[in-house]
Amino acid sequence: MNFEINDPNYENRVRESFSKQKLMETIGARLTKVLPGEVEISLPFRDDLTQQHAFIHAGIVATIADTACGYAAFSLMAPDSAVLTVEYKINLLSPAVGESLVAHGRVKKPGRTVTVCSADVFAFKKGEKKLVATMLATIMSILGREGLVG
Amino acid sequence: MNFEINDPNYENRVRESFSKQKLMETIGARLTKVLPGEVEISLPFRDDLTQQHAFIHAGIVATIADTACGYAAFSLMAPDSAVLTVEYKINLLSPAVGESLVAHGRVKKPGRTVTVCSADVFAFKKGEKKLVATMLATIMSILGREGLVG
Amino acid sequence: MNFEINDPNYENRVRESFSKQKLMETIGARLTKVLPGEVEISLPFRDDLTQQHAFIHAGIVATIADTACGYAAFSLMAPDSAVLTVEYKINLLSPAVGESLVAHGRVKKPGRTVTVCSADVFAFKKGEKKLVATMLATIMSILGREGLVG
Amino acid sequence: MNFEINDPNYENRVRESFSKQKLMETIGARLTKVLPGEVEISLPFRDDLTQQHAFIHAGIVATIADTACGYAAFSLMAPDSAVLTVEYKINLLSPAVGESLVAHGRVKKPGRTVTVCSADVFAFKKGEKKLVATMLATIMSILGREGLVG
Repeated sequence: MNFEINDPNYENRVRESFSKQKLMETIGARLTKVLPGEVEISLPFRDDLTQQHAFIHAGIVATIADTACGYAAFSLMAPDSAVLTVEYKINLLSPAVGESLVAHGRVKKPGRTVTVCSADVFAFKKGEKKLVATMLATIMSILGREGLVG
Repeated sequence: MNFEINDPNYENRVRESFSKQKLMETIGARLTKVLPGEVEISLPFRDDLTQQHAFIHAGIVATIADTACGYAAFSLMAPDSAVLTVEYKINLLSPAVGESLVAHGRVKKPGRTVTVCSADVFAFKKGEKKLVATMLATIMSILGREGLVG
Repeated sequence: MNFEINDPNYENRVRESFSKQKLMETIGARLTKVLPGEVEISLPFRDDLTQQHAFIHAGIVATIADTACGYAAFSLMAPDSAVLTVEYKINLLSPAVGESLVAHGRVKKPGRTVTVCSADVFAFKKGEKKLVATMLATIMSILGREGLVG
Repeated sequence: MNFEINDPNYENRVRESFSKQKLMETIGARLTKVLPGEVEISLPFRDDLTQQHAFIHAGIVATIADTACGYAAFSLMAPDSAVLTVEYKINLLSPAVGESLVAHGRVKKPGRTVTVCSADVFAFKKGEKKLVATMLATIMSILGREGLVG
């Protein structure tokens, strides 16, 4: 699927906004791919991000999936827009265990105000890749709200 | 709403499982109320949990809401059960800013296998309380899976 | 919860739009309450609306819940706005059986563009009322799109 | 993606259950494809299924998407199982207008108890195919509940 690009500088814009998300540094997440309408975020496994069964906590799985969806949408937005998540739904499919997680976010339907995205999160364990979660998210573009950009 | 309690020791069981969630310690979340079918989790604001506009990241808002839902369900489960989140949906209603967030999770419909919960997340700022997010979650009870309890 | 009314003629506006929904007549649904930010829709049980186990089909349960949410939001909108459902999530909690279903939709968070609503659907059977489904919905107000009103 | 088949008679089982859904006949929906883990349902446009803007009502779009998800899951279940929708989320992406709608449901993650499915709904209008909605659904297999099969 090919998307219309509203800003040739989209990659810098996404990377700059991502770098302002202090949570990404806190949990060790990295932006590993930025294409028009498609973003990938990687997270090495860390023991301090786990829930009671030693799986990565569903909230952290959702954090990287939501961020991948948000920036997939943001990559197609106008230069001076801000991006906000309206809502998302996530299904946890398998325990999030292994060496690392990768969230692939993609735009499903772009829009001037509302963009719908989906994300799949995969766990990598001993060379095997397994789908551990899937998300459907509604992302909004905000224009002209003072002080809100990126 | 009054729920049937399947384990008089429910509060200890919830507190013990919560204490094993290393992520809760990492982000500074505390279990501030445990009742049958109802759990409250509090999170003081921290700069290292923010997204690009300096709001608490949607993923962290969801993390405490999901954990509150999971333990609200777990409080009604049998002693030897394990709790897993099947899926949830969250709407972000207002920027998560202020001194602290509190997530109230409640059981909406208990069940032997599947329990449905909802959660509201409030931000406290200069003495005012504001609804910032709402969640609807499907939680599952797992019985008899070796090594999986709590 | 008290909402700001943007149109004193809200009830007529809701009733007029509802009367244009031909599906409501097809399935036999009626608008039984219209308040600011709150709408109730009732549906007598009909055998031709069932799924394979003779319960009312989840899609019909969702239809009245979605319509109740949409009009709860619409009741607070400006006179010349149109209402559209962006998305919703529904949990089916119990079999939808009995003499009738009633969907109660309420605004959870009003907004100029996006309004978030929730709905509970109850089944009435031999004088007993039972919660059979719960919905969380994102509704959008459209202004100034030619030919789109109501 | 290839799925493990638990019942070589899956197609008959799906077709028989579908034929018991009286709502499908009421709205004119037909089962147009049944494969392991994949089901397609078609719905010719009908004026009596519309909402106030003369689009097919979101609830009917969801009805065929939910049914496609349910039978995609059911096609992989054991012979004596019953299928129930636990919950779903749907995003409405474009007005559901045209000559007909087609819902494609696919299993995303099969499971003994819980199966997660997604569905896309397309509208066909003057030879063009357009994505109008997308769903993520949690489906449950029920075994051994008296009188509940199909």
